[in-house]
Amino acid sequence: MSDLPSLLERRTRLLGPNVRLFYDDPLHLVRGDGTWVWDADGRAYIDAYNNVPHVGHCHPRVIEAITRQAGLLNTHTRYLHENILDYVERLVGTFGPQITSAIMVCTGSEANDIALRMAQAATGNTGIIATDHTYHGNTAAVSQLSTTMPPIGGFGGHVRHVPAPDSYRGSTAEGFAQAVEAACTSLVASGHGVSGIILCPAFVNEGFPDLPPGWLDPALAVVRRFGGVVIADEVQPGFGRIGPQFWGHLRMGFAPDIVTMGKPMGNGHPVAAVATGFDIIAAFRKAFRYFNTFGGNPVSCGAAAAVLDVLRDEDLPAKAAATGDYLRAGLRKLADRHAVIGDVRGSGLAIGAELVTDRASKAPAQQLADQVVNAMRAKGVLMGANGISYNVLKIRPPMAFGLAEADQVLQTLDEVLTAL
Amino acid sequence: MSDLPSLLERRTRLLGPNVRLFYDDPLHLVRGDGTWVWDADGRAYIDAYNNVPHVGHCHPRVIEAITRQAGLLNTHTRYLHENILDYVERLVGTFGPQITSAIMVCTGSEANDIALRMAQAATGNTGIIATDHTYHGNTAAVSQLSTTMPPIGGFGGHVRHVPAPDSYRGSTAEGFAQAVEAACTSLVASGHGVSGIILCPAFVNEGFPDLPPGWLDPALAVVRRFGGVVIADEVQPGFGRIGPQFWGHLRMGFAPDIVTMGKPMGNGHPVAAVATGFDIIAAFRKAFRYFNTFGGNPVSCGAAAAVLDVLRDEDLPAKAAATGDYLRAGLRKLADRHAVIGDVRGSGLAIGAELVTDRASKAPAQQLADQVVNAMRAKGVLMGANGISYNVLKIRPPMAFGLAEADQVLQTLDEVLTAL
Repeated sequence: MSDLPSLLERRTRLLGPNVRLFYDDPLHLVRGDGTWVWDADGRAYIDAYNNVPHVGHCHPRVIEAITRQAGLLNTHTRYLHENILDYVERLVGTFGPQITSAIMVCTGSEANDIALRMAQAATGNTGIIATDHTYHGNTAAVSQLSTTMPPIGGFGGHVRHVPAPDSYRGSTAEGFAQAVEAACTSLVASGHGVSGIILCPAFVNEGFPDLPPGWLDPALAVVRRFGGVVIADEVQPGFGRIGPQFWGHLRMGFAPDIVTMGKPMGNGHPVAAVATGFDIIAAFRKAFRYFNTFGGNPVSCGAAAAVLDVLRDEDLPAKAAATGDYLRAGLRKLADRHAVIGDVRGSGLAIGAELVTDRASKAPAQQLADQVVNAMRAKGVLMGANGISYNVLKIRPPMAFGLAEADQVLQTLDEVLTAL
Repeated sequence: MSDLPSLLERRTRLLGPNVRLFYDDPLHLVRGDGTWVWDADGRAYIDAYNNVPHVGHCHPRVIEAITRQAGLLNTHTRYLHENILDYVERLVGTFGPQITSAIMVCTGSEANDIALRMAQAATGNTGIIATDHTYHGNTAAVSQLSTTMPPIGGFGGHVRHVPAPDSYRGSTAEGFAQAVEAACTSLVASGHGVSGIILCPAFVNEGFPDLPPGWLDPALAVVRRFGGVVIADEVQPGFGRIGPQFWGHLRMGFAPDIVTMGKPMGNGHPVAAVATGFDIIAAFRKAFRYFNTFGGNPVSCGAAAAVLDVLRDEDLPAKAAATGDYLRAGLRKLADRHAVIGDVRGSGLAIGAELVTDRASKAPAQQLADQVVNAMRAKGVLMGANGISYNVLKIRPPMAFGLAEADQVLQTLDEVLTAL
């Protein structure tokens, strides 16, 4: 049995105060298997939230790969080892031909911290453009991309934010490109110049706007006209979550100069990477010495390779596309009976259902979304809320999510919305 | 058999050019066990270099802990889990009473990136002091502490460097304190103010100077007088490497406000941490939102706990002290017959033997050190060279290093120095 008060007291004392927990009634999880997790009281939950256990909680093939390599050798990249070469070769094979090389690191934050410096090395400029409600990680440099809370010492002045696309409220590709052009002009005027733009091709934190392929092209053309590069942060959409196109940028039909990835890459094992072309990696290696002790170690590469194996052998990207379509269709049916669901969108198993207080005004129902997330948890379904106004229900489960689980999510959501 | 040309071609193509490998004749390692590693041709090497496989390459108890927890659950700190609480409670118990809390991350670089911001949050200042030949990690913010290669956009102007102590050439505690005072004065004049000082208590990258307990006290008192905090980077000396005192700062007899750690913490599994007192962690949590997806996951905590178990059950810090003393005594005997060994120093299994071209002038023998390291590798012993002039032979093996291995290192070094 879980002793919640004792756990909470120890957590504050040992990890510090004000560290957010999910749900009004925090979860004490002790076991996971596939798309299910269990709490300390033995209660089961459908996991419709976690993207890190990408191929399923505790997948035996990933564990086996980690155990096997950990028993052979775990060392670093100052020695030669085939695991990192084999993995990077497979990884770059999933991209367009402009991506040939990669640096392996441990977290998506480290990957983006490098990506920003790659853009600097490739262009000689320091100015960077990001969307205004985004999150790219937690290092001091990457945190500068965030709009919340000015850091001590202030923002560096080298970041410009453009409004994140909001397909439900009529964002246009031309409007987005104009905002990017204004940002570029401002960066040039400030002396920083344009090193590039960084964006999540699926805008997952910003509510999964429904954008057709090519929508970003005018904005990215502006960045390139100003000499900048394009960084696709694939930490969330990547590795088949958005379907068989495998990467968010391939679905959107553009060719980034730099791609970063992390969370799902090792199914929970801390591994991440930044991939790019040879000229940019050479420019980065020349401008910045970089060595990462744990980055690209044989065990991490083994875990990451096992994830690629399982994605292929269990045909998970195609399954994610099918289950995602099924879930979206089900959510649209729920929208027929629940006016609070204003919009349903996403691709593959990155699914958003935007809640509004009024469909005509499209006023965001943030508080309601929070209530729904907590009510779903009480009924044994884990999901979250995100989006520009935190009013978009986020369904982003492990990739093995099946139709039975999808039905249970839809049925439970129906009950919760009916009861509200 | 290893196909070196093919491996090198693939490495450059896939990982980028100019990525350093150890040794003129690079090593292709495929297996490790305890204090030994094997290359692809089946040749065995004594590992007198690697500090990451802290309790020995492929230690079965660490692998078992990883495998067991990976089969139960691997998730993040938005849910409650006892592994992180149990681990942090044990960890902070190894420090003085000023350290009560910790943030778990994945790399020492991430730990130091946070430590710099903790110092800012605790003081409201941004200026930071470091020694001039140090390395604290690879994020954009932490790289600012390095003196090599100005980054694109330039150094931020908030870092002041003081000369690293060099006990062999007569550095004094008073001189060090005066340099720190000048740095503090300069930071105040520049408007950055003093957030703190960051240093490796054993100055491992700077050649392991022999400093008695209390040597740093005058300098640290200056930092505190200017309102700054003291950050001990224990990534290299920590976890018993310097002996049963367990941490470099405990051996040096000072009480840091913030302690960072990484490399040996999970025996190669990517886990690291920054530990501090409740007031500082609360100030950091308030000033900077921080969440690390992989940081403190139950598997990483399980690996780290297993390392603490093995250190205790195999009495490794005491063993490291004894083997280290034996090695230093042996190196001093070698110095009687080899005039190139100008100084032998260090504590526990952090051992330096400084090579000089002339004992009177103490002129650093950098090229010779490089030759020795390569000749040792050719004879089956892995070691490195570091120090302010890269002329200090570095012996820093896994903690289970025994007297038989020590004898073989000493005998091989004798042969190599005789043949030069």
